[in-house]
Amino acid sequence: MQADEPLCPKALLSGYTVDGSFQQYCIAKAAHVARIPKEVSLDGVAPVLCAGITVYKGLKESGARPGETVAIVGAGGGLGSLAQQYAKAMGLNVIAIDTGEDKRKMCLEQLGASAYVDFAKSSNVVEDVRNATEDKTGPHAVLLLAVTEKPFQQAAEYVRPRGSVIAIGMPAGAYLRAPVFGTVVKMISIKGSYVGNRKDTAEAIEFYRRGLINAPFKVAGLSELQSVFDKMERGEIAGRYVLDTSR
Amino acid sequence: MQADEPLCPKALLSGYTVDGSFQQYCIAKAAHVARIPKEVSLDGVAPVLCAGITVYKGLKESGARPGETVAIVGAGGGLGSLAQQYAKAMGLNVIAIDTGEDKRKMCLEQLGASAYVDFAKSSNVVEDVRNATEDKTGPHAVLLLAVTEKPFQQAAEYVRPRGSVIAIGMPAGAYLRAPVFGTVVKMISIKGSYVGNRKDTAEAIEFYRRGLINAPFKVAGLSELQSVFDKMERGEIAGRYVLDTSR
Amino acid sequence: MQADEPLCPKALLSGYTVDGSFQQYCIAKAAHVARIPKEVSLDGVAPVLCAGITVYKGLKESGARPGETVAIVGAGGGLGSLAQQYAKAMGLNVIAIDTGEDKRKMCLEQLGASAYVDFAKSSNVVEDVRNATEDKTGPHAVLLLAVTEKPFQQAAEYVRPRGSVIAIGMPAGAYLRAPVFGTVVKMISIKGSYVGNRKDTAEAIEFYRRGLINAPFKVAGLSELQSVFDKMERGEIAGRYVLDTSR
Amino acid sequence: MQADEPLCPKALLSGYTVDGSFQQYCIAKAAHVARIPKEVSLDGVAPVLCAGITVYKGLKESGARPGETVAIVGAGGGLGSLAQQYAKAMGLNVIAIDTGEDKRKMCLEQLGASAYVDFAKSSNVVEDVRNATEDKTGPHAVLLLAVTEKPFQQAAEYVRPRGSVIAIGMPAGAYLRAPVFGTVVKMISIKGSYVGNRKDTAEAIEFYRRGLINAPFKVAGLSELQSVFDKMERGEIAGRYVLDTSR
Repeated sequence: MQADEPLCPKALLSGYTVDGSFQQYCIAKAAHVARIPKEVSLDGVAPVLCAGITVYKGLKESGARPGETVAIVGAGGGLGSLAQQYAKAMGLNVIAIDTGEDKRKMCLEQLGASAYVDFAKSSNVVEDVRNATEDKTGPHAVLLLAVTEKPFQQAAEYVRPRGSVIAIGMPAGAYLRAPVFGTVVKMISIKGSYVGNRKDTAEAIEFYRRGLINAPFKVAGLSELQSVFDKMERGEIAGRYVLDTSR
Repeated sequence: MQADEPLCPKALLSGYTVDGSFQQYCIAKAAHVARIPKEVSLDGVAPVLCAGITVYKGLKESGARPGETVAIVGAGGGLGSLAQQYAKAMGLNVIAIDTGEDKRKMCLEQLGASAYVDFAKSSNVVEDVRNATEDKTGPHAVLLLAVTEKPFQQAAEYVRPRGSVIAIGMPAGAYLRAPVFGTVVKMISIKGSYVGNRKDTAEAIEFYRRGLINAPFKVAGLSELQSVFDKMERGEIAGRYVLDTSR
Repeated sequence: MQADEPLCPKALLSGYTVDGSFQQYCIAKAAHVARIPKEVSLDGVAPVLCAGITVYKGLKESGARPGETVAIVGAGGGLGSLAQQYAKAMGLNVIAIDTGEDKRKMCLEQLGASAYVDFAKSSNVVEDVRNATEDKTGPHAVLLLAVTEKPFQQAAEYVRPRGSVIAIGMPAGAYLRAPVFGTVVKMISIKGSYVGNRKDTAEAIEFYRRGLINAPFKVAGLSELQSVFDKMERGEIAGRYVLDTSR
Repeated sequence: MQADEPLCPKALLSGYTVDGSFQQYCIAKAAHVARIPKEVSLDGVAPVLCAGITVYKGLKESGARPGETVAIVGAGGGLGSLAQQYAKAMGLNVIAIDTGEDKRKMCLEQLGASAYVDFAKSSNVVEDVRNATEDKTGPHAVLLLAVTEKPFQQAAEYVRPRGSVIAIGMPAGAYLRAPVFGTVVKMISIKGSYVGNRKDTAEAIEFYRRGLINAPFKVAGLSELQSVFDKMERGEIAGRYVLDTSR
């Protein structure tokens, strides 16, 4: 349960490196399947697997303790809205970083962030994030949900001394880049986090079961798959689509 | 004792940001001075402060446990030879990375490294470092004693999944740069480490007191300072010079 | 800030080993006083110092992570009602253990416990506490707010394998007593926790500042001290009395 | 590899709760067998499994870091002599506690202990153990290889504040007993440790493979088993007997 099975050097990923995953049944090792409690609806919990697990694991890896502050970059997206809810359920304060007034409203009013920084409007993101913490020394951790160079460098700057920057997204060909001097003198940690193991999965599901996580979704039959992809390409999807493979 | 005083945001560094340190006496806060046991010679312990503390702290920060393997980049230099001795005293296996036959001999025969990789001669440093570990999956931690871009990127590649890369040196203007994909998927940590606190200092001195650390040095009077600088510029110094400020 | 100053081997405790503490002003080392934010009322925060700090520290020491379950023995008392609020703010599930219907109601309805075990009515406390956890294997941690022999032995039995039992109260002459076999085979930890350091204090106050902690209290002038003591002896005090030393 | 499989609530122990273990071959799950490197002799490594694993795990659980001091109670016995070697390989200082001049000599001269306290001759074991540490505040950890009441209470007294007492032996019906006041005010941890998991096993074997562990043994054929038991009953065995199940 506590192993790092996602780090298996010879991992086979269904739907990615091997075919499969759009089917109604499949055979798996009993020790490795996720147990979903009876009272949990299968469609509701679907977005927790794997988006919820991924952000929950990232928050665990950050080492941030209850009462501390985490900045979430990309807070208004699909991963980000789950991340905010997990962070809150874990007793963390959230600084949401994203852009736009709709997202500001959603983060502050629905998802429980204590501050919102609009990276497109801010004239100094680093200062604004630091000032959003009680003692102005920056968040204890940063969750980077889409690791691109600029947000990453900003995170390395505004994170508190001894803080951690957790990289989660995996844009092809992208590089982390941080000034050596600041990293050393502030003793910050930069860490990658990749989905989660069976224990993380069970814990992420348990937060959901207790009603602390809410991920809006619509259900479509597998036969409607093409129309879902079409909507996705036209940017018409808010929240997530869950596929019912039985129809 | 356990605070992070080196991370003080308003630190004054004598000899660096304020004048001083080439004097025989100075006044300091009793709670902050290093206590040197009576049986320890002042000239012998001098290189431990601060080179020894710095590498000892880096090894602590790496999280490597006794029996695990640490790669030390720049193993044959002043910091590196201390790092190897501390690593060994801490029950760690050492892969020494440097260049030249003299350094190979010193690392393997005198400093207790279990393997040596000559980065200038190796046709594939990443492979060679990985192959120097028992299970070929790479060292648990890497200590980078001179953080420049190429060794840093190599370290991010050869370090074991879940391993840590500790940056210690601070070349002006240098940048850490690592591929996001590999960092995330291997869940590695990149961490800065900067000197040490009072507890680290006391511990580093205690290893020396117990005879586990040996740093070759010569003593010169303060009046000879210019000639020491001259030798340094001509590259004629092996080991360290300790200044006797009383003469 | 991160030192273990409460463990000072030569500690002087004002009002306990040295006279003092019922005064309006006193001189203290600036580095050691607790900073109380301007927006926090002095009387409201008083019970946090030291009751709040003590239970918050105990919860930290337990190692229980957000989403895990802590059993609080003596949940309905002064320390216990603060402990439940801190636990909840830290993302923990609470099993409240105490006796009486009033306390049951308070714990479940006001303080957010997810289960209540009445130790006086239960025919099998160990079974009942275990069954109050999702997977019936017992809480991850137990906070013992009044360490007496029977509750302690029960805690060692119902705590989950690898779990921790935190002893906080200090009844004179009492002994911890646990069967060796069960302790070893279940690999449980038994740990003492004693108030908190300056960092714990700052953190405990910050939870209060954010409105997450509510400790009912009445204010009395120092001149009314005797009548407060009289009420205490007659058992007529619910919640806490805060003394205003200015009148 | 990192799971707590020894804590399985339905564990079957071959030779203990189910028959078996005195045979030449047996079938086991590939994921659970211990891998013994080719260059390691099967008879030599036998005492590491399980005595070596058990003490190595106890030292890991103690949280003692390289350079810190561990007191080993029962240092001169079979488990104790392995524990001293593992402790030394892990960079720990050892205070050996046992009785008799032969054991004193063995501990100090062969096994690398830095101090020896004869519990039968000492007029004050607690003082003597404390005085054997550099700063006289006691060892950071205590390994109790035979948990009986008196040594346990002494350990709780001489261990350093914040230190840990690790219980390993499991005498039937024995109880841990410690004064609440001292446990709380010194914030000590009392912890059970029970054999080790697959990762601990692999690590314990690796220390042996590297030549850091030496456990004296004699080999007997399985057909000689009765005579070995007879010797054991007569107390004529020093070191360990390894059975060759092929003859």
